[in-house]
Amino acid sequence: MVAMGARPLARSEVEVLVREVLRQRMAGRINPPPAREARVAAARGGQNAPNPLVVNVSARHVHVTPADLEALFGGGATLTKHRDLYQAGEFASEQLVTLVGPRQRIIPNVRILGPTRGYSQVELSYTDGVYLGIDLPLRVSGNHDGTPGITVLGPRGALTLDRGVIRAKRHVHMSQDDLSHFGVRDGDEMKLRIHGPCGVTFDGVVVRHHPRVILEVHIDTDEGNACDIESATNIELIK
Amino acid sequence: MVAMGARPLARSEVEVLVREVLRQRMAGRINPPPAREARVAAARGGQNAPNPLVVNVSARHVHVTPADLEALFGGGATLTKHRDLYQAGEFASEQLVTLVGPRQRIIPNVRILGPTRGYSQVELSYTDGVYLGIDLPLRVSGNHDGTPGITVLGPRGALTLDRGVIRAKRHVHMSQDDLSHFGVRDGDEMKLRIHGPCGVTFDGVVVRHHPRVILEVHIDTDEGNACDIESATNIELIK
Repeated sequence: MVAMGARPLARSEVEVLVREVLRQRMAGRINPPPAREARVAAARGGQNAPNPLVVNVSARHVHVTPADLEALFGGGATLTKHRDLYQAGEFASEQLVTLVGPRQRIIPNVRILGPTRGYSQVELSYTDGVYLGIDLPLRVSGNHDGTPGITVLGPRGALTLDRGVIRAKRHVHMSQDDLSHFGVRDGDEMKLRIHGPCGVTFDGVVVRHHPRVILEVHIDTDEGNACDIESATNIELIK
Repeated sequence: MVAMGARPLARSEVEVLVREVLRQRMAGRINPPPAREARVAAARGGQNAPNPLVVNVSARHVHVTPADLEALFGGGATLTKHRDLYQAGEFASEQLVTLVGPRQRIIPNVRILGPTRGYSQVELSYTDGVYLGIDLPLRVSGNHDGTPGITVLGPRGALTLDRGVIRAKRHVHMSQDDLSHFGVRDGDEMKLRIHGPCGVTFDGVVVRHHPRVILEVHIDTDEGNACDIESATNIELIK
C-alpha cells in the first residue's frame, strides 16, 4: 500500500505537481485507463421477486464532503446533476476532478457522485490501481481504516485525502422486501451468477440493507468486463 | 464491430495518422489503459495431478507472421527474446508496436510474443476494446472469421491487418496426461474456481490439447483483476 501525506498541499507543491503532469503528458507518458460511465447492464426478474434484478457497473468515481467540495470547486460550491442514478436521489454530478497518484500519474475527468456525504471516498478498479501505483484495499463503502490516500485536483484547488481510496467490494442494495424474498440479512454474502459467452459467478456479494433502496447489484468495470455483462443471457442472485 | 480497411496504408496516410496521434497526445487526449506483463499468478497442485495448476494473466499482446514482422521492423527482422514464457519455446520478445484504433486512439508499447506464427493476431482485453472503440469478438486463438482489423505501427513501417483482433477466450493448455487426469478432451469447457477475497468462478475455460505443452490456464487482465488473482488462496479447475 502506498499512502500519500496527510497535510494539505501548498500552492507551490500543486504547481510542481501540475507542471510534472503536463511535462509527462507532453512526453506521452501519462496514459490512464479509459473512463466509463456506470450503466444498467442487465435486468431480469427473479421467481416471484418483489423487484427486478438490476446489475450496474460502477465506473471509477468520487464521493465528497461539503467541505472537500468547496476545497476543490471554491466557496459555496454545490453539486449539479449530470444524470440520475438508479437509486432515488443519487446522481452523477457535472463536477469532474483529476486524481494524482503516488507516481505522479494522473487520471483526469473522474466524476463526483452526489449528493455530498459525511466522508470523501475514491472508488477505483484494480486496473486503475495498477496504473496509479496504488495497492487498493477491498472495502465496503465508508470503511476507511488503513486505506491509502490520494491527491485530488479541482478547478479551484487541490486536496490531499489521507485515506478513503478503495476498490468497492461487490454488493447488492436491498430493501426489507428484498431481504425477505432472498432470505438474507444485512452483511450476508451472496453469489451473482452471470450466464453468457463470458459466464462468471461472483462470490462475496455483500448484502447492504436500507429501507429506501431498490434492488441493485454494483460491480466495477474490471468485473463487468471480465464477464462481458452486456452479453449476459441471464443473471441470478444466489444465497 | 468496427473493421479497418484491408489495404496497406500509403506513406502519406501513415504520416497523417502519426501527426494526428502526436497532436492528440500533446492535447492530452490519448490515454490508453495501463499495460501489464503476463505473470504467473498462482500455482497449486491438484489431487494426484500430473502437473501443478498454473494460472497466467495474459496482458495485451501481438502475434505476427514473418512477413508482417518485416513490414514493421524492416527486411530480415527477427524476434529477439525479452524473457521466456511458461511454455517451452514461447517468449515475450523485445519488439514493441503501437496499435492505432478506429478512433485514432493509440496504445503504445504492445509486446510481440514469439516465435512468429502462420497468422498475425492482436489480443486485447475488453477494457482495451472500450478505449480503442473496437467491439472485440471472443475467440479461440487463430479463429479470425469475421474479426475486426487494426493498424499496427512499428519502427520501420505500418501495417493494416484486415482481421485478427480478438479477446482470447479463457483457455487451459493440456498435455495428454492432463486430459486423462481431468477426464476431458480437446475443445471441452471447464470451470476455473478462484478462492479468495474477490472469489470468482469462470465458466467456459476451453481445453486446448497439444502434446508438448505444460498445464497452464490463460485469463486476461480484466479477468485477473476481477478476481484479484494475486490474492487467491486456492484455485481449482473443475470439469
